[in-house]
Amino acid sequence: MTERIIIKEVSARDGLQAQPKHLSVEQRQRLIASLVKTGVPEIEIGSFVSPKAVPQMAGTDQIAAALPETAAEYSALVPNMKGYELALKAGIRTHAIAISATEQMNQNNIRKSLAETFTMAEDILVRAREDGVAIHVYLAVAFECPYEGKVSPATVLEQAAQLMRNEPARLVIADTIGAADPASVRSLMNECVAQFGTDVLGCHFHDTRAMALANVYAGIESGIRQFDSSAGGLGGCPFAPGAKGNVATEDVVSMCEQMGLDTGVDIPALLESVKVLSELMESPQGGRSHYWLNNNWQKISRDHAA
Amino acid sequence: MTERIIIKEVSARDGLQAQPKHLSVEQRQRLIASLVKTGVPEIEIGSFVSPKAVPQMAGTDQIAAALPETAAEYSALVPNMKGYELALKAGIRTHAIAISATEQMNQNNIRKSLAETFTMAEDILVRAREDGVAIHVYLAVAFECPYEGKVSPATVLEQAAQLMRNEPARLVIADTIGAADPASVRSLMNECVAQFGTDVLGCHFHDTRAMALANVYAGIESGIRQFDSSAGGLGGCPFAPGAKGNVATEDVVSMCEQMGLDTGVDIPALLESVKVLSELMESPQGGRSHYWLNNNWQKISRDHAA
Repeated sequence: MTERIIIKEVSARDGLQAQPKHLSVEQRQRLIASLVKTGVPEIEIGSFVSPKAVPQMAGTDQIAAALPETAAEYSALVPNMKGYELALKAGIRTHAIAISATEQMNQNNIRKSLAETFTMAEDILVRAREDGVAIHVYLAVAFECPYEGKVSPATVLEQAAQLMRNEPARLVIADTIGAADPASVRSLMNECVAQFGTDVLGCHFHDTRAMALANVYAGIESGIRQFDSSAGGLGGCPFAPGAKGNVATEDVVSMCEQMGLDTGVDIPALLESVKVLSELMESPQGGRSHYWLNNNWQKISRDHAA
Repeated sequence: MTERIIIKEVSARDGLQAQPKHLSVEQRQRLIASLVKTGVPEIEIGSFVSPKAVPQMAGTDQIAAALPETAAEYSALVPNMKGYELALKAGIRTHAIAISATEQMNQNNIRKSLAETFTMAEDILVRAREDGVAIHVYLAVAFECPYEGKVSPATVLEQAAQLMRNEPARLVIADTIGAADPASVRSLMNECVAQFGTDVLGCHFHDTRAMALANVYAGIESGIRQFDSSAGGLGGCPFAPGAKGNVATEDVVSMCEQMGLDTGVDIPALLESVKVLSELMESPQGGRSHYWLNNNWQKISRDHAA
C-alpha cells in the first residue's frame, strides 16, 4: 500500500499575501478553481484579516461564499477571535492560527506578548471545539526568529506541548523565514513525533536558503506526512530577486511521487495552475523543478506507477 | 570535534566541458586560481581527452604544467589509458575515470561495451598502483540511464564490488543525469557504506530535478563525506534554460556549514569564484542559494562558529 503525503496548497494565502501585485477576488477565484482541479487535498483560500492591514486578502469572505464543490478541504487563516468569527460565518470549517515562538516576533508582528498570543490561541481552540471547527495551529519562527535568532528545540517542544493540551486538529512547525536546515528539521521533528505522534503534525518550509526540499525530505524521514507548499513557489519577500518563497508544490509533489509516496496531485493540472498564476501575477512563476517538470512530467508519473 | 565534508570542485571540468562558450587556457587558469583561494580541498582541473572531441578541455596539459601552489589536491579526468599517460606526464597524481553502469550508456558515450570498459578501468587501476597514482572511479548513471532507464541497486553493488577489488582511492556513485531522489540515494548509499565503508565512497549529483541538495543530505545521512560540486552550479546541458547542472558548491557548503559540518571552504572567496565564472561565461552563474548567500553569508559563518 502506497503511503500518503497530505499537501496543503497555500499559494492563495501565503503566496499572495505579501505580493506587490494585488489580485482581485475574481482572479483569486480563478487561481483556486485551477488548484481544485489538481486534486490537492487541502487548499488555503485566504485570510480573514483587516483589508487595511493586508489588502491582498480583502474579500476572502466573498471567496468563501462561492467556493467550487470539491473533495478538497478548504481552510483560511484567522489572526484572532474576530477573524475566527468571520471565517466561521463565511462557512469555513478549518481555520489556521499562527503563533510565533518568540516574544519579539509576536510583538513586532501582531503587537501582542508571547503570553497573550498563547491565551488567544487557547481561547480559539476551546471555542472551536464547541463549534466543531478544526484548528491548524502554526508555531511560527520555530527554528529561527529574525529578531531573537535561533530558537531552542526545548522552547518549541514546551510550547507545542502547551498547545496540544487543547487538542488542535494539527500542529504545524513553521520555518517562517526559511532558516532551517535538514539536520535541525530531523532533530526537532524526531522529538515532536516522539511526543505527539505523526498524525497531528505538519511542517511549513520556505526556500530562502534553498534547503526547503531537503527539509521536506528530512521531515518525511522523521515521520511527518503533512506539508504546506505553494504552487510555483510563490510567497516570501517579493522584493528580493532570486529569494524564493514557500517550497514549491511541484517540487514537493515530484519528489514525493518519485519516492513512491502518493500526493494525489495531478502534475499536468498543477503545471496548469502555475501557468494561471504566472498570467495573474504577470510574471513567470515556477518552482525549482518547474522547467524540467514541464518537459518531463511523464517520467515522474511512470516512476510512480512502476 | 567537527566532522569534515570533503568537496571536490568540478566546475573547471564537469562545469565547462559541455558549455557552448569555450574558455581559453588563460581563462580556465583564472577560474582555477580563484578556486584555490576558497580553500576547497580538491579541484578537478580538466580532462585529458581529445581536443577534437571536447574542444572545451583543450590545453589541460598546459594548465597542469602551471598550477598554483596549494594544499588542495588537483585531479583530472582521463577517458582511457592514453589519457592516463598524458595526465601522468603532465604531473597529475589523482585521476578520475568514469564507467557507466549500463551497456547502452557505454556504447553511446565511448563506443565500448560494458565489459570492455571494466577491463579498461581495471588496467588503469593496476597501472596506477605501480605508479603511485590515486584513482577516483566514477560509476556513472548509477541511478538511471537515459537509454536503459532505472538501474537496479543490485547491479550497482555488484559493479562496485568488482571495481573495489583493484582498490581505487575513491569510488564515486554518480547520478550523471540528475534522476536520483533522496530515498533512492539513502537506500543505495546505505548498502554501499555497509559493504565498503565511508572512507572510500563519494557521491556526484546533478540538480536536473531540483533534488540534488536533498540527495546530498541523504548521502550525508548514509555516512558519505565526499561530494563533488560545481561553483555556481555550472554544468549539465546548457541548452535547456532553467535546467540546472551540477549541484552548486555554494549550496552544499552553506547547508553543510549550517549543519555544523566543516567544509574548509571560505564562503566570500567562493562567491568571488562564482563572480569570476559569471564574467568568464558572460552570463550570470549562481546556485540556488546564491542570492541569499551573497547578502547573508555572515549568518552561515556565525551559525558554524556557534
